[in-house]
Amino acid sequence: MAPLQSWLDIDPKSDFSLYNIPFGIVSTAADQEIHTAIAIGDHVLDLHVFAQGNGFSALSIIQPHQAVFSQSTLNDFAALGRPMHRVVREYLQSVLLKDGPFPDVLETNKDLRTAALIPHRQCQMHLPMRIGDYTDFYAGLHHAYNVGVLSRGPENALQPNYKHLPVGYHGRASSIVVSGTPIRRPNGQILSDPKTKEPLLAPCRKLDMELELGCFLCKPTALSQPICIQDAQDNLFGVVLLNDWSARDIQAWEYVPLGPFNSKNFGTTISPWIVLMDALEPFATVGIQNDVKPLPYLDERGRKSHFEIDLSVILTTSAGKSSKICTTSARNLLFSFPQMLAHHTVGGCPFNIGDLLGSGTISGEDMSAKGCLLEQSENGKISIKLEDGEERTFLNDGDTITIKGVCGDQIGALVGFGDCAGRIDPALELEYD
Amino acid sequence: MAPLQSWLDIDPKSDFSLYNIPFGIVSTAADQEIHTAIAIGDHVLDLHVFAQGNGFSALSIIQPHQAVFSQSTLNDFAALGRPMHRVVREYLQSVLLKDGPFPDVLETNKDLRTAALIPHRQCQMHLPMRIGDYTDFYAGLHHAYNVGVLSRGPENALQPNYKHLPVGYHGRASSIVVSGTPIRRPNGQILSDPKTKEPLLAPCRKLDMELELGCFLCKPTALSQPICIQDAQDNLFGVVLLNDWSARDIQAWEYVPLGPFNSKNFGTTISPWIVLMDALEPFATVGIQNDVKPLPYLDERGRKSHFEIDLSVILTTSAGKSSKICTTSARNLLFSFPQMLAHHTVGGCPFNIGDLLGSGTISGEDMSAKGCLLEQSENGKISIKLEDGEERTFLNDGDTITIKGVCGDQIGALVGFGDCAGRIDPALELEYD
Repeated sequence: MAPLQSWLDIDPKSDFSLYNIPFGIVSTAADQEIHTAIAIGDHVLDLHVFAQGNGFSALSIIQPHQAVFSQSTLNDFAALGRPMHRVVREYLQSVLLKDGPFPDVLETNKDLRTAALIPHRQCQMHLPMRIGDYTDFYAGLHHAYNVGVLSRGPENALQPNYKHLPVGYHGRASSIVVSGTPIRRPNGQILSDPKTKEPLLAPCRKLDMELELGCFLCKPTALSQPICIQDAQDNLFGVVLLNDWSARDIQAWEYVPLGPFNSKNFGTTISPWIVLMDALEPFATVGIQNDVKPLPYLDERGRKSHFEIDLSVILTTSAGKSSKICTTSARNLLFSFPQMLAHHTVGGCPFNIGDLLGSGTISGEDMSAKGCLLEQSENGKISIKLEDGEERTFLNDGDTITIKGVCGDQIGALVGFGDCAGRIDPALELEYD
Repeated sequence: MAPLQSWLDIDPKSDFSLYNIPFGIVSTAADQEIHTAIAIGDHVLDLHVFAQGNGFSALSIIQPHQAVFSQSTLNDFAALGRPMHRVVREYLQSVLLKDGPFPDVLETNKDLRTAALIPHRQCQMHLPMRIGDYTDFYAGLHHAYNVGVLSRGPENALQPNYKHLPVGYHGRASSIVVSGTPIRRPNGQILSDPKTKEPLLAPCRKLDMELELGCFLCKPTALSQPICIQDAQDNLFGVVLLNDWSARDIQAWEYVPLGPFNSKNFGTTISPWIVLMDALEPFATVGIQNDVKPLPYLDERGRKSHFEIDLSVILTTSAGKSSKICTTSARNLLFSFPQMLAHHTVGGCPFNIGDLLGSGTISGEDMSAKGCLLEQSENGKISIKLEDGEERTFLNDGDTITIKGVCGDQIGALVGFGDCAGRIDPALELEYD
């Protein structure tokens, strides 16, 4: 069956088909104010301008809440809850649909169309949410196994707890940035000579990326209020791509016994458009089969709570040559976001709207499916061949990492994430006398 | 020399002498609105009411900023910077001073006095800051050593990195609560039988407290903007007592390899009054001498950046019997807050106003100076004797832990923190079919 068409000209290979309708935060050079928006093809629809121009006139249920579209984050829209997200998304689809029920709202309303539909290239993207707390999990089974092999060999690659609970740690919310923000190579304590055990302060020499998904929360919970796994879906707002930049040499020295710290908190990049859970629903699937039976509080009873998202990572050198260095699928997770949330709250940890969960690095089983350079280069031992004869073990200054993700393969009906990109800037030269 | 006197009747043993003037957030039953305030003796001075009643009429420099006193957190006041905190604190001291320069402002202004000076017992205290990110360090040398001995024996008690950098981890901001909030015993995965390696979901059986200091930040920094150790003091707003409640059995199972997670994020209690850095300055001292020479970015060159704060912990059973279970000093830290901040930002991690640093558990060298029950009971092996014949290894339901801290011993001139208290409520009964 041919996919539904919009009256708007949409590139059939666009991530932002009529089937997607992701939400983000934009500003334009002409209007410095920051507004909520959706992406559609090569355009964004500014929802503040759309609402002011009576764009929601045919959707009375949203009218008391229209102020949410004039905010500088999506937190207030998220707070309206999943049934309202669904209604708004479906209404916007119908407004954009060719021969749809509401041609007067935008299609034939030239003034509003001109004011509210803006070419994407004219927009600057901003962080979509005001993020309270950020937690990063480690649910990529093959990644955890590969990293464990490097540290402890194949016999003990996975720690005893690994399959029983989604292992995670609290990340740093303040250093989460939107795609396009340059990432400066961090300075930090590094053990350059393991024999002397004397660290030095130096620019990271093992700068890495990590391919992850992020999931934003849309429902607050109180202290001591666990979220039952059956209800966890109601708390999920939508998904972004996430690059958990990592400084492996800083990490190796600092992480015992309390986990990664400065090796992770210098920057975390997310893609700007939040793909709502409803848009992902048609691509729901099961994750990796866990050969350990989960405790009842983590038991999803076979529910499809993962997503078939084709993921890839492109490394672009400062000379402008791009090489695809990883191709994998978001199915490669042992635990789902509902399981992460059920575990995170079982002891009583509260959540705020806008809190973010990271999946952990997603790697497949193949050589070409490893989601970070630590795995690909076996901690610097193997050179990764790029286009144009270049090689890498870790990232060079000037390298840009771009993560892409898309659901489905039906041209004209893709549900994609856009780019999650960041370029490495050289380390600051620190001066201490 | 006799201490300066206030015209207000202040108990000479009060934590809140004229020399203190800590800032907090209060509401009263009569006025549900939440305002900024200071504590003075048994009273609080509501700064919103005080400002509205022209209390700041003699301090013109603050007048354009008086809206900060009508906020529901101290973030906007903190943002004014340390010179302004100093001016406001000293002005309020002079307003409260016997035979001071401004008797008309409050002392003889009966209307304003009645409206703004409220008995402390009539006030409800709230979280003083809107906390963005929370980082907990591990800078208590004796604590780290004692815990290391329990895990690895005295030879390898401290990890190789320990004296080179302030080890820390990102904590959970959403579960920080103000003193007086009950703490519910968490449920979590526990390895009840180490032989089978099969965890179960159960209420924590090793519930612990941790005696710490917390320090709030008052200056934002950008991504990739390290804070130089010489400038770090400007970024510190003030200090609170902090109890980093810990579930030792959950921690033992979950913490490898990414650090503590659900074992810590079910609740962290702070004292409600922020003692400003200026109030602590007279009690500045050096911490523990580090036998490892710090790298230049951490070198304080002998600056007194720790504080002589006498700390104690009281355990009160549900029968109402109180036992002092720990007496120590805040000097027992290997790294200072400026060092923590210099390290935290050296790789580029940004800070927001209201971010919180925890010191890590503070223990002295004596048996009576151990700042958590894990150390005192040697992980459950030794019974801690309480008044009234009771014993503990870890906390029982109904136990209340109260941390106290005070600088100085001159009666009438104490600079104290008030209580940091929390009672253990029984675990939720979780039902899973």
